[in-house]
This record gives sequence, structure tokens and C-alpha cells, in this order.
Amino acid sequence: MIIVMKRAATTQEISSVVARVESLGFHVHLSQGEERTIIGVIGDERPVDRTLFELMDGVEKNVPIRQPFPLASRDFKKENTVIAVNGTRIGGSKVAIMAGPCAVESREQILETAHAVKEAGATILRGGAYKPRTSPYSFQGLGLKGLELLAEARQATGLAIVTEVMAPEAVPLVSQYADILQLGARNMQNYALLHAVGEAQKPVLLKRGMMSTLEELLMSAEYILSHGNYRVMLCERGIRTFEKYTRNTLDINAVPVLQSLSHLPVIVDPSHGTGKWEFVSAVAKAAVAAGADGLIIEVHPHPDVAMSDGAQSLKPEKFAQLMRELWPIAEAVGRSL
Amino acid sequence: MIIVMKRAATTQEISSVVARVESLGFHVHLSQGEERTIIGVIGDERPVDRTLFELMDGVEKNVPIRQPFPLASRDFKKENTVIAVNGTRIGGSKVAIMAGPCAVESREQILETAHAVKEAGATILRGGAYKPRTSPYSFQGLGLKGLELLAEARQATGLAIVTEVMAPEAVPLVSQYADILQLGARNMQNYALLHAVGEAQKPVLLKRGMMSTLEELLMSAEYILSHGNYRVMLCERGIRTFEKYTRNTLDINAVPVLQSLSHLPVIVDPSHGTGKWEFVSAVAKAAVAAGADGLIIEVHPHPDVAMSDGAQSLKPEKFAQLMRELWPIAEAVGRSL
Amino acid sequence: MIIVMKRAATTQEISSVVARVESLGFHVHLSQGEERTIIGVIGDERPVDRTLFELMDGVEKNVPIRQPFPLASRDFKKENTVIAVNGTRIGGSKVAIMAGPCAVESREQILETAHAVKEAGATILRGGAYKPRTSPYSFQGLGLKGLELLAEARQATGLAIVTEVMAPEAVPLVSQYADILQLGARNMQNYALLHAVGEAQKPVLLKRGMMSTLEELLMSAEYILSHGNYRVMLCERGIRTFEKYTRNTLDINAVPVLQSLSHLPVIVDPSHGTGKWEFVSAVAKAAVAAGADGLIIEVHPHPDVAMSDGAQSLKPEKFAQLMRELWPIAEAVGRSL
Amino acid sequence: MIIVMKRAATTQEISSVVARVESLGFHVHLSQGEERTIIGVIGDERPVDRTLFELMDGVEKNVPIRQPFPLASRDFKKENTVIAVNGTRIGGSKVAIMAGPCAVESREQILETAHAVKEAGATILRGGAYKPRTSPYSFQGLGLKGLELLAEARQATGLAIVTEVMAPEAVPLVSQYADILQLGARNMQNYALLHAVGEAQKPVLLKRGMMSTLEELLMSAEYILSHGNYRVMLCERGIRTFEKYTRNTLDINAVPVLQSLSHLPVIVDPSHGTGKWEFVSAVAKAAVAAGADGLIIEVHPHPDVAMSDGAQSLKPEKFAQLMRELWPIAEAVGRSL
Repeated sequence: MIIVMKRAATTQEISSVVARVESLGFHVHLSQGEERTIIGVIGDERPVDRTLFELMDGVEKNVPIRQPFPLASRDFKKENTVIAVNGTRIGGSKVAIMAGPCAVESREQILETAHAVKEAGATILRGGAYKPRTSPYSFQGLGLKGLELLAEARQATGLAIVTEVMAPEAVPLVSQYADILQLGARNMQNYALLHAVGEAQKPVLLKRGMMSTLEELLMSAEYILSHGNYRVMLCERGIRTFEKYTRNTLDINAVPVLQSLSHLPVIVDPSHGTGKWEFVSAVAKAAVAAGADGLIIEVHPHPDVAMSDGAQSLKPEKFAQLMRELWPIAEAVGRSL
Repeated sequence: MIIVMKRAATTQEISSVVARVESLGFHVHLSQGEERTIIGVIGDERPVDRTLFELMDGVEKNVPIRQPFPLASRDFKKENTVIAVNGTRIGGSKVAIMAGPCAVESREQILETAHAVKEAGATILRGGAYKPRTSPYSFQGLGLKGLELLAEARQATGLAIVTEVMAPEAVPLVSQYADILQLGARNMQNYALLHAVGEAQKPVLLKRGMMSTLEELLMSAEYILSHGNYRVMLCERGIRTFEKYTRNTLDINAVPVLQSLSHLPVIVDPSHGTGKWEFVSAVAKAAVAAGADGLIIEVHPHPDVAMSDGAQSLKPEKFAQLMRELWPIAEAVGRSL
Repeated sequence: MIIVMKRAATTQEISSVVARVESLGFHVHLSQGEERTIIGVIGDERPVDRTLFELMDGVEKNVPIRQPFPLASRDFKKENTVIAVNGTRIGGSKVAIMAGPCAVESREQILETAHAVKEAGATILRGGAYKPRTSPYSFQGLGLKGLELLAEARQATGLAIVTEVMAPEAVPLVSQYADILQLGARNMQNYALLHAVGEAQKPVLLKRGMMSTLEELLMSAEYILSHGNYRVMLCERGIRTFEKYTRNTLDINAVPVLQSLSHLPVIVDPSHGTGKWEFVSAVAKAAVAAGADGLIIEVHPHPDVAMSDGAQSLKPEKFAQLMRELWPIAEAVGRSL
Repeated sequence: MIIVMKRAATTQEISSVVARVESLGFHVHLSQGEERTIIGVIGDERPVDRTLFELMDGVEKNVPIRQPFPLASRDFKKENTVIAVNGTRIGGSKVAIMAGPCAVESREQILETAHAVKEAGATILRGGAYKPRTSPYSFQGLGLKGLELLAEARQATGLAIVTEVMAPEAVPLVSQYADILQLGARNMQNYALLHAVGEAQKPVLLKRGMMSTLEELLMSAEYILSHGNYRVMLCERGIRTFEKYTRNTLDINAVPVLQSLSHLPVIVDPSHGTGKWEFVSAVAKAAVAAGADGLIIEVHPHPDVAMSDGAQSLKPEKFAQLMRELWPIAEAVGRSL
């Protein structure tokens, strides 16, 4: 249930409603918008007489929630969530561009890439310090050294940093370096990790599992929100299907569907979504045309010697060209880059 | 193998090469472009010395084909195939718009829709006279009466007609009324039907099976081409995945992938690709941004009483609005509607 | 709706009910069992007062049908359908074994295989004369010559023949040679073909499409039943999933699910279900243990030179060994071979 | 690469080979079988002259490994791995039966179930103390209290305990109570957790992710093995497909495929594999017939009030009946329960 307070509701009235909700054994999530306050009532579904709240002062109405992800739903919050990171606003009129290598490999590599993507117009630098790899014998990332290099790249360019965190106990360390915590596709239902980032003070980029439904993605977002962290971005990065020509099948439908169900920003990853650099540009344009709030794109100065994902990485000059091509698309849908 | 003739090759030289190829037990597919002639050599893979052909007069080079769909491949034909239908050129700089109801239901319905989509800018009218339905107890289409109504709508509006043919023996009849023969997703591997439309004198819109790979789609196109009909359009209409929020998952990757592998035009069907009218516009824009050569969209004046697919049909005014929104996207990728 | 007549209902009473049903615009499917007659009422879902029928003489009760496949459903017919073919009863206590090559290739090949599988205990010979092939350039079967060779093999061994029919117009010809008409996976929703075999006088082996749900399989069976042919076997032959180590993923759940939903016999094809001969035996045993009413298995005397499906064909001696291993499994579930 | 030592190789010779391997920068995994010692050489794929080792004393031969999971592969170890747990040997001639509720809910519930499954013939008790749940608002398990109740049930019945561990930091605690650590489907690629159980001193039941290929399952097993824990069981529990009638699609092919690729025991979970109790028995029998080394089955005394997975839980009497029916199947494939 959601209780919508009147515009003119006083702090006193809000507190009274919250106290009543809690006295019935529910948890409360307060959302104080610019215009009005909304009170999310979280708990099991035992029957409560909803009309009871409508009699209280300051209450405009209450709304039952049919979606199993109340906090992430549009019912809970009509207007889009906008997340500010280092001066970039994600979820607003600008399409946020995150770019960089799959993995941080060296000082030269990350700095060269950071300068290049910055110049092309990106505002956020991606790069993995801890890499989830299918094989225990593959390169697992530079770890702490990688985080330090990312921080150095931020210092040098002013770009914000998004990087993956793979284990609950690593959240505090990664939070020291990252501006956005990335939760990878394989960890979308790692509940201990969702809990941990739910308590972190950083925005989260939550990637859809490669075989997770949109409802499951929103349920995982709900885990983070319900632990108090409301700054969550949803990332469509391709799902696993029978089609094998591309590495994954980018689910373009996910963009309008997620935006209709949820107020959270939707980011698209055309690099993993296709797995082949030659298709990244077409799909990136499609994502912006469909209304995506941001893109995350793999860029590497020398894809042929990349330690991972070389096949799907754009060279800096290709990325710059893509940025130029994205501009008129963004404008055609009433946005900018 | 493909034998590329020199620009200046004479008819005599071409005939000699063809005769040589046939004497070795292969079939020949001649493609006479504006600039030069290309000879497709079709047959099993027994070893033939390719250099043998390079010694013949008029031969520039020969190219082995690794794709199992030689005639449909870019190796065979570098430039895009452009298919002219009733004044519309599909595969050229204009994005072709096909629109209309799922099924022809009545004279009023099809004429009202035809006028509306024509006015909004469509050049081709879709509408099913024979409907493949999962249940034997569902509406199966008006049959011949439906074809006649489509012809009347063409007469009234000048729109070209695309309509489905479901059985080999129906090809001659449907060809009398249709400008484009549609081969439905469930029939993508109906080889008797592929054979029949391969011998028809009409362009074919070949829909991808809901669980068919892109290679299989191209193999089915190859069936049609190898029977002599080169005017084939490939249609991505969504594939079946685990995601159930949308009726199908539109594979946006298919657009650049098919265009890289084949010279045939690529059409996108956002109506079946999403199954819900409220997501059609976003995905239609994405398709144009990704480079699609055309769209096929379900439009119905009264979706709530449609005999099939009402949930995914746009009302005429929504369709008109979408057309207006598509214009700047098309221009952003260097095309027009 | 199904109208269940009393045990003692007279022919006169049954006729009266049928007349009443038809006068309301419905179609009737009569099922005269040993004990009582059941009247299937087929038609669109407009509201009819069901109690109206309960007042008629001879009517015991009427039952609404919730499944969209009334004739194929257990609601319609509680006891298993048993189909007699050349002395073999499919759907009864014996597990029917169909075996033979993917395609008929030569007189020697089909006769050698027929004798071998007969000796090992099979009662039905499989073999394709018309082959649906992904590529137009692959071997398409011997056609009529193949049918004649199958008939010769039947003559020589007494085995019944199951072979595929691919087009509506071929049904009469194939029916002259086959004891069971096979409808292949790619044609499961070829409605013109379903219609044609629904009017044939031969039992049908309906293979599940690689992309089809169990409900869709039952709907396709319903097409055949609703055209008057009640002798339909359902065949699980593996579905398409993301797993690529095996050619398909055999859906073992399908066996108990189909048997709970329908009265029709369930056949399992472990050859296509795995695509690799070394896994056929394990999965064949699993199918019998799960309760399958029959198996269809590819056997070829020389898989290494087979013109199709060699990788999934058992040699005759492996097949004979499998038959010996299947016996105790069949007995463990109360059946025999 | 694998170096196979001669039967008569001395400890000294083995040490020399190990030293040589390590001096080249590789890791070594020693497998000392009853007959001979095998040395696994783990490392990146830079070119090393393999013949170099064949000149050393005591070496019989060396074998390149093509599988990306050397330690888990049959190439590494020809004979089946047998894991002894509390007197039960998993992977030997007996089919191991694990049974119990989805979640530990109360003392009465777990003790009643434990006695019932023990009496029916199970040797291992399953039950979740920590539950991964899609929704943050669902029952998350009793936690430590649940572990204590499981220990009490072991005390009372002598059954071994298998229970899930969800986070790396929980491994030491859960290891104090469990005989087998279960790693759930959603955590199959949680690399921090794989690392942690790889260092634990307990056998591991590794469930296949619902979205994971068999190769990925074996790569995840490889993570555990490569960290020193060789006692890993692979569990097929159904994969996600387009079919929605059942909760998952049990991949029966996985049983013979995994046994051909790997020496590790293969367990099947027909409860999750079907999601409906009425299909569990048929699929359990199929799994044993296909050669599974064990089953894990959900049993609950009162499924209608179960806090999770009630729909797929067998009542104790149904479970006892299944056990009686499994006996002859097990014997038919040369095993016992």
C-alpha cells in the first residue's frame, strides 16, 4: 500500500501516519518529493482496512500496490528518479554516456582511454578492477591497484568512475574509489551483495542477469531500495537466447517496459548486448531512440590486445564517431548528450 | 564459389563461363548488375580447382563462399537489393512503411484503415485474408472475400498490398491480389511453401520464425532465391525467449547483423515484437535508428473489438503521431520516410 | 462444453441432444466409448445456458472445458487412447518401438536396417522419403522411390511404416505407402497440412515444434482431431534452448505433463532430443521410466556415411543392446516392449 | 596438460616432475589414485614443449587438455569420484537420496520430516536455513536457528545434512553444522563464494544455474577444485526455457553429458526441475534410469502450509511410495538405493 499525503500536509501529520503504520507492524519508506510526501507501507499481505488511513489528517488517498516491487514501481513515484553523480544527472533530459575498457589493465591504458572518451563527450569512465570470469585461470583484474588507477584517471579527467564490486565484504573498499557501484549480471540475484550495496552510500548500476526477467530485475532493485539506497540504475545488457550469432540478444523492449513499470533510470549496454564491435553503433542509436537514459560502452585503445572483451570494444576514434552520430538521434527524441 | 566477371566482359565470355560451370555438374545463378555480371556457382562441395576459371576470358576473379546461403550473402552481391513495389522502393534511401490491421474483417474496417494509414504516410497496406491461428476454433480470416476487399482498398488509395499466403496451392490465387506475398513466422521452414513462392512473380516478405536463428532465416531466403525469385525482404518480428512481459523479444541486433551478412532489405515488425501497443512507438523508433529498411505496423480503427491482435494495434491517430516522430529519426540516420 | 450421456442412454436420446446442440450453431464431436457416449460441443464462446441440456433425457451431466483443446483433453476422455497399427497397439501396456534411418537412402540400406531393428524387437520402421532440410542444396530425400522402398521393407519384415509428409497435396500419395503419417517439427503449425492429415485415414505422429509449448502442441493435435482424425500420437523430440552441447534439450517433463493433460499416446525421440548417439541410450531409458508410450530411434548400419543425422544414429548392434537394457526398465514401470 | 606417471613411479620421480612443472611457472594439482599418480598442469596457454616431460624418469605420457576445465574433466581422472559423507558414498553403485523440506520452518516440521524420509530410505536430509528469495519481503529462512534444528535432526536420525550457504563470510558457520554445503542456482557464478567453498573442508553440492550451460557448470566446479576442494557434486535442477507449464525444464540430457565430460557425481533435483509435485515421481524415475548418482527431493509433511515451494513438495507417504517405485528402476540399471 502507498499512502499519498496532501500537498499541504504538515510534518506533524506525516509523523502521525508513519507512527500508525509502524504500530500495525509494517515498515515505512518515506519519499519526500518536491510537491508531496509519499509513504510506502512494506510488509506481508495480512488484511488491513485501508480506509482507516483515509480518515487521518493530511492524507489524500491510499493506493494498493499490485506490483511485487512497491518501492521500484511507478505507483510509488510518478516522476523519474534523477541521480546526480559528479555533476552528471542520470535520468534527466541528458543521455548519460559511460565508456571505457572492460578491465583496467595498466596506467597507460586507462589514462589514454579516459582522456579519449572524455574528449568525445562521455562523463563517466567504466573499467573493471575485479573481474568475474568464467574460468579460474583467466585474468581476474588488477584488484586494488586497478581501483587506484581509476582514481588517478578521475583526477586527471574529472570523469566519474563506475566499477564492479563482486563481494559484500568488498563494498566498503570499492566505495572509497567508485562514484557508482556496478553489480554485474551474474550477481543480480546475489542477495548478500544486494543487501550490502543497499546499505552503501553510493549510486548503484544494477545489470540485468543474462537470463533474468524484467520483473526479477525490478525485484533485485527492490532489495537495494528496501535497504535504504534509492539511487539505483537499471541496466539492460542483453539476454541469453537460442541465437548464437551475437553474444547476447539485446532486449530493446526492456527500455519502454522498464520505464513504464519503474521510475528508475534505464541504461543500455550495447557492447555486451551484441558482443561484436561492428554492431555496437547501430544498437547504441536504437537504444537512444527507444528512450534510454544512458549508455555504457566498452572502449579500448588496442582491442586486439585487450585482456578481455576485445571483440566488443570500440577504438577511441570509432567511439568519437558514434558520439557524433548519437547527437541528432538524441535531439530527435527531445534530449541531448 | 562466385565468379566475378570483368566490367567489359562480353555476352559470349559470360556464356562460356556458364557452360563450363554447368559441364562440371553445378547449377548457375546469374546476377547481372549495372556494372558487371556475377555468376553464382551452386552445388555440393566436391573439390574443383578454382584457378581453372581465372584463366578464362572475361573473368576478373573468383571468390569462395563460406556462408551456407550463397545467393543471399553479401559476398554474392555487395550493393543492397532494392525492390520496387507499386512505386515504393524498398531497400533504398526511404524507409518503407507498411501498416494496417492484423486481419481484414469488413469492407468498412479495411477502407477506413487504408485511408488513415495512407494519409499518415504509409505506402503499403497490410491485412490478413488467411490467418494462421493456434486454435482451430478461432477466426481463420475472410479468405477470398478478404483478398477482394484488399484489392478494393488498393483501388481506393493506391497503396500496395502485402498479405499472407499459407499453402503452396494458394500461391497463384493470392498472387492475383497481393503486391507482396507474406510468409508467416510459423511457415518460415515450410519448404513446400518456400519452393512455391520461389517460383511466384511477386516480391516476398519472409518473417523470421519465432525461434529461428538468423542463419536459418537466411537459409529460408536462400530457398526462395534458389528457385528464381530474388525479390525477398527479411522481417524481424520478435523471437521467443524466457521473458514473458512482452509477447516476444524484438531482436534489434538482427538489423545490423542481417545487413552485414546479406544484401536483402530488412523490415522490422514492432507490433508482434512487443505485443503491446504502448511499446510499439519506442521500438519502431529504435528500428529506424538501427537502420531498418522498413516497418510493418498493425493499425486498427477499433482495437478493442479487433478479431485478432487488438492489444498490439495502434489506433490511426497514434499511428499518425508515430509517423511524425519517426521523421527526425530517419533524417538523423540519413534517410527519409 | 462436454455433455456426458448416461450409460443407458438410447440412440434416440443421443440424436436429440446432438440435434439441439447443432441447432444452437455448434459443431458436435461424438465419442462413443465402450461404456457411454460423450458429446463434445465445439464453437465460439458465446453464452449458452448449460443447464438447458441437463433437462434432456439421457443426459447425465455437462462439463465446461477450461482447456483450449477440448477434444485432446483428459476432460473429454478419461481413458488413454490406444491406436492399433498393423498389430501393434500404441498407448497400451506395451511400449512401442519405432526405429530406422533418418532418410531412406538405398534398397540395401533400408532392408538391412529393417531386418536388424525387427530382430532387435522394433515393430515399426521409420525412414524419410521426403526430407525437410535447412539448406536447399542438401539431399532432399528419394521421394516416391523412397516410399516404394519402405513398402518393400514392410513386405519383407512385417514392420509398420512411419514416414513424413511435408505438404497437403502429398497426403494422398504418402497415405498409400505409410501406416503412420509423420508430421515434422517444423510443420507443427502448418495449418494447411494439419487440416489435410486431419482428413486422412491414417494415424498421425505429430512432432512437437522445437519452438513450441506443450499447449501449442496440443492445439495442433486439436486441429487434426477437429477434422475427424482421432488417431494422433504426440512426440517430444527436444526443444531449442540456450544449451548448445546437445543438439536439442529433451523435455522429459513433457511425458508426465502431456499424459496428465491429454488421453493421446506420448512418444519420445531421444535421437533428435540429444543429437549425439552416445547419449541416446541413457535418454531412451529415462523416457521409458518416465512413462512414455513409445520411442522413435534413428538406426543406421553405417552412420559415418549417412546422408543425414549420422551423428545421432545408433548402429544396429548398439540398438539391439539398448533394447535388451530397456526391458527391465519397462518391467519396472509395469510395462513390456 | 596432464602428466600421467607410470604405475611404478617413485615418490622421488613424482617430486622431480612437480618441481620442473613449477619452475616453468605453472600450478600443479596432484591426483594420487590407487594405481598411479596423475599431475595436472594448470596455467596460461603459452607454448611449452610437452615432449620435454616425456624424457623424465617415471613419466608414462602426457596429454594435452582441450576442455577448459582440466581438473573436473574425465581426461584428468578416468574413474568416477566417490564422495563419502556420513557413511553414504555418493558416486558409487548406490543412488544417494537427499530429501527434506525446502526451508526449515520449525522443530516439529524438520524432525517429523527427517524421521519420515529416513524411514523411507533417504540417507541425507535437505533443508534451508538461509533462503535466497526473489522478494526482499518473503521469508528468508530461520538462519542460525535453522542450522541448529538441522543438527538436532541429524542427532535424532543419523541422516547427513545438506544445506545452502549464501555468502563467503557464512561458510565457516554453515560448515560447523552441514555435512554438505549447497551452492544454489543463483550463486553458481558467485566467484567469491566459489572461492570460499573451495577452501572449505566439506563436500559441495553445486547447483546448475537456471541460465547456465553445462560447460559453465563445469567451469564453476573447476573454481572449487582449483582452490583445493575436490569433493564436488554437480546438480541438474532444471533450466529456464520458453515452456511455462512447468516451473523449469529438467535437462535430462545433462546426466549422460556431464558423466561423459567429468568424473564428478551427478545429482538430479526433480522438485525444482518440474515445480509441480505431481510430476516429480515420473522425472525422478527418469533420472535414475538415465544414470544419475543421486536425487534431491523436496518433502514436506504439510505442503499446503509450507512457507516456500509447497507446490513442488511431496508428502511423506508419496515420497515413501516413490522410493518403493525407484528400487526396480535402480536395479534395472545395475544399482541400488
